[in-house]
Amino acid sequence: MALDTSGAYVIGVDFGTLSGRAVVVRVSDGAELASAVHDYEHAVMDTTLASSGATLPPEWALQDPNDYREVLRTAVPEAVKAAGIDPATVIGIATDFTASTPLPVLADGTPMCEVEGLRDRPHAYVKLWKHHAGQAQADRINALARERNESWLPRYGGFISSEWEYAKALQLVEEDPEIFERMDHWVEAADWIIWQLCGSYVRNACTAGYKGILQDGAYPSEDFEAALNPAFKGFAARKLVHPIGQLGDKAGGLTAQAAAWTGLPEGIAVAVGNVDAHVTAPAAKAVESGQMLAIMGTSTCHVMNGDTLAEVPGMCGVVDGGIMSGLYGYEAGQSGVGDIFAWYVKNQVPGRYFDDAAAAGKSIHQHLTDLAFAEPVGAHGLVALDWHNGNRSVLVDTMLSGVVIGQTLATRAEQGYRALLEATAFGTRTIVETFNASGVPVTEFVVAGGLLKNPQLMQMYSDVLRLPLSTIASEQGPALGSAIHAATAAGAYASVADAGEAMGRVERGKYEPNAQAADAYDKLFAEYSLVHDYFGRGANDVMKRLKAMRKEALS
Amino acid sequence: MALDTSGAYVIGVDFGTLSGRAVVVRVSDGAELASAVHDYEHAVMDTTLASSGATLPPEWALQDPNDYREVLRTAVPEAVKAAGIDPATVIGIATDFTASTPLPVLADGTPMCEVEGLRDRPHAYVKLWKHHAGQAQADRINALARERNESWLPRYGGFISSEWEYAKALQLVEEDPEIFERMDHWVEAADWIIWQLCGSYVRNACTAGYKGILQDGAYPSEDFEAALNPAFKGFAARKLVHPIGQLGDKAGGLTAQAAAWTGLPEGIAVAVGNVDAHVTAPAAKAVESGQMLAIMGTSTCHVMNGDTLAEVPGMCGVVDGGIMSGLYGYEAGQSGVGDIFAWYVKNQVPGRYFDDAAAAGKSIHQHLTDLAFAEPVGAHGLVALDWHNGNRSVLVDTMLSGVVIGQTLATRAEQGYRALLEATAFGTRTIVETFNASGVPVTEFVVAGGLLKNPQLMQMYSDVLRLPLSTIASEQGPALGSAIHAATAAGAYASVADAGEAMGRVERGKYEPNAQAADAYDKLFAEYSLVHDYFGRGANDVMKRLKAMRKEALS
Repeated sequence: MALDTSGAYVIGVDFGTLSGRAVVVRVSDGAELASAVHDYEHAVMDTTLASSGATLPPEWALQDPNDYREVLRTAVPEAVKAAGIDPATVIGIATDFTASTPLPVLADGTPMCEVEGLRDRPHAYVKLWKHHAGQAQADRINALARERNESWLPRYGGFISSEWEYAKALQLVEEDPEIFERMDHWVEAADWIIWQLCGSYVRNACTAGYKGILQDGAYPSEDFEAALNPAFKGFAARKLVHPIGQLGDKAGGLTAQAAAWTGLPEGIAVAVGNVDAHVTAPAAKAVESGQMLAIMGTSTCHVMNGDTLAEVPGMCGVVDGGIMSGLYGYEAGQSGVGDIFAWYVKNQVPGRYFDDAAAAGKSIHQHLTDLAFAEPVGAHGLVALDWHNGNRSVLVDTMLSGVVIGQTLATRAEQGYRALLEATAFGTRTIVETFNASGVPVTEFVVAGGLLKNPQLMQMYSDVLRLPLSTIASEQGPALGSAIHAATAAGAYASVADAGEAMGRVERGKYEPNAQAADAYDKLFAEYSLVHDYFGRGANDVMKRLKAMRKEALS
Repeated sequence: MALDTSGAYVIGVDFGTLSGRAVVVRVSDGAELASAVHDYEHAVMDTTLASSGATLPPEWALQDPNDYREVLRTAVPEAVKAAGIDPATVIGIATDFTASTPLPVLADGTPMCEVEGLRDRPHAYVKLWKHHAGQAQADRINALARERNESWLPRYGGFISSEWEYAKALQLVEEDPEIFERMDHWVEAADWIIWQLCGSYVRNACTAGYKGILQDGAYPSEDFEAALNPAFKGFAARKLVHPIGQLGDKAGGLTAQAAAWTGLPEGIAVAVGNVDAHVTAPAAKAVESGQMLAIMGTSTCHVMNGDTLAEVPGMCGVVDGGIMSGLYGYEAGQSGVGDIFAWYVKNQVPGRYFDDAAAAGKSIHQHLTDLAFAEPVGAHGLVALDWHNGNRSVLVDTMLSGVVIGQTLATRAEQGYRALLEATAFGTRTIVETFNASGVPVTEFVVAGGLLKNPQLMQMYSDVLRLPLSTIASEQGPALGSAIHAATAAGAYASVADAGEAMGRVERGKYEPNAQAADAYDKLFAEYSLVHDYFGRGANDVMKRLKAMRKEALS
């Protein structure tokens, strides 16, 4: 197909946990011309610090910010070259990032780990989203907020996560106060990378709200900070407060230095930073109230816009303009989905299944899926809880764990696999029903992410939810979403919604619920709900006691 | 070693589910000289009837009684020959059998399936212990007995099993009334084989009590029979009532025909029939009050003598002289033990474990055990319920199923395996504690059966039970037990207890509980008990609903 020579292009860059991916996208229709990936040299530092070789304690997860710059220097020009376009036709660039992934920086944006003498200080590095070493701090934040009845707590379903800005900053001030004092900003990598591109710091509305506890224009009070730790007093005022940029707005123009790195024209639009899940909504055309987008991979993140502000128990958060400017953005999540299926395949599936899958030329996941779904609903006689990695929504409890009920001497491996697939769908339904009951009804389920490749899984989700299920028609949803934001920031469209309408791609209603299957799943879901509440809401805290026993036994 | 030429020998024959095993044993000290096995030609008929090829309905399990005669004709002379003894030195023979395994016979002992014209009638054959097609009849027996407050019901822990004589006979009268009417006796195979050996029918006290509901000299009343089904009225009086033989007594002398079959001297003592589990008690020297014998294999059967009569909730039964004449014999059981471990290995263990086991020259069970027990108690963070084949004691509910709680993304296959081993030990502890609380305290745990080969499993049972654990020192416990009964019936000893003292073999206190491990297991057992009662005593009947859903889905 000949390129539209009259056309303009944008670059979307998706910064993931292990690599960054740049995609070249046509502004007129969202066509993805080419992409390139760059793996981070230091990947995730979760056992040792690369500079010194020093051992890191459990639950740490750091990154080196220079690895992000390398993505701009390598993946972006490679993608442009592979697309065969004239770089002069690129009119904008935007990025999305994991979150909350904050780092301490000086006033000019220099990361503390690049400051003379601080290179070997673990707290000088980026704390990746899955850095959980601030759990004790998160617990104290939650206990104090409940005690003080802080008005912002219900905006986060009642819980602030150890993954977010506050718990990580409180850990920093308590473990390396010098770095805390010397840093000028506690900045999300999502915003820091934009700073590298356009030379100015703009704090994006999404992470500021979801991860930074910015609600109704205010952060938690100084009183609250001081009650946590006197050294923490003034944290927000001194390290966080900064002008907020709305998603899709222009943060600035590409600097000469960034133009040299990327090979793109100096001065082109650089969009306000964004988060991987949230940026995907317009790419999947899931921007209206009631359209819940689920990015289903190792875990699932749910995002949905709403016209009104509501408090949904156990959600991750609601933020004004958190997904799209002018709407309330809701977020929820399941901390284990594809990860649970992978765990089962690795640890609970006999060798003959792998042999048969290879002989049939299928992946082991597809083989197990085909075997399991050859039976009618309920024929396995099982129900499971999908908490192998804890429960993010709606129970918000990392100390929960998995359960399988109903095994007999006739139970086969593929039946256990299906019970876990179903458990994740029941977990999603629990979230959807909680939104429905909180005045934010879900009317369509839109899926992005790697798991949409499994059609039986998708059909089952549609049946369990009794909702039409749409799927994004791009394999690079976040990067396409970033490109949409770049086009908007460049002024090619009046709004992200307009850009998404032209550039996003969805197969609307690809799966429709089957009434008979839905009736059968209703019965299984009723069983799921009963044991969900029994094990998850305090009637029997056996999971927590087992984890405590495990910790003690291994200490 | 030269044989004791002055000595006498006895033959013990153990009739199992798939084969019969004859063992030649020296009377003076119980030395086992040789054995021989004969596989039943028709094995278990559970899908088709051999004579006609007709399909059998689900839950049926039949046997052909002539297969039992073949054991006498082949395994007995082979064992004698292999032992190298003079057949004239054999002074007695005894047998033990699966139970309840009844068959309909004419007055002379001819099985109905050998009667002209009845060869193709399924109900004319032996109903093997695991024939479960009379579950509906068992349910009615239990409901009616509870309603009428029958005094015998508590002697069976509150439940009559579908495996026993009454349920199977009620199915017979309702499905093939002609066979029911024409039969003169509803006889246990345990007694029928003795009839074949000595020419006379003696009903043994063990099966009459445990399987035939004979209590205090009486069977259930005619009123009760008539209320079940008018055609069933008079069942006991017409088909069951017969002189009772005490265990270890002589039933008669070996007939000329049986002498010809076996090559043994005509007229030697033939002992009263017996059951495989119960006959083993003197072989393992577990005959005193408080010495609980567990025959641990695919399932576990617990037998124990007591000086007094007590009602133990959920036991299988208490029978006067049921294990040894003059004492109350208690029985309980777990319907899945080794079967559950085998199921897990077959369905939930990845290929690399088999590769590693083969490389280390170990069985897969030993390999998993070694890996699992390298960790301290509780390090797996799991608790399981051992109900994959239902629960025999103390809940007496075949509709229960398995549970695993506590799985995380870090859980390994050997940890799940250990959780199941522990679950069976917790199931045993639940039985032991119920006996303790009912005035029949357990003071020593004695193990026979295939699982005693796993030393870590045995140590764990000792720790969990906080009891010394003794193990039988014979690999053919039931056959040795039969030989002990043969020696007693022949008059070589004054009682089964005396014969067992001389001929039985046990390693007393081979395992002693480790106090530290026992403390840790106490915590896990507390969790087991909590979920045991939640899922097993009606708080949440999810397992029954899942089984009903499964049945409906597959129908």
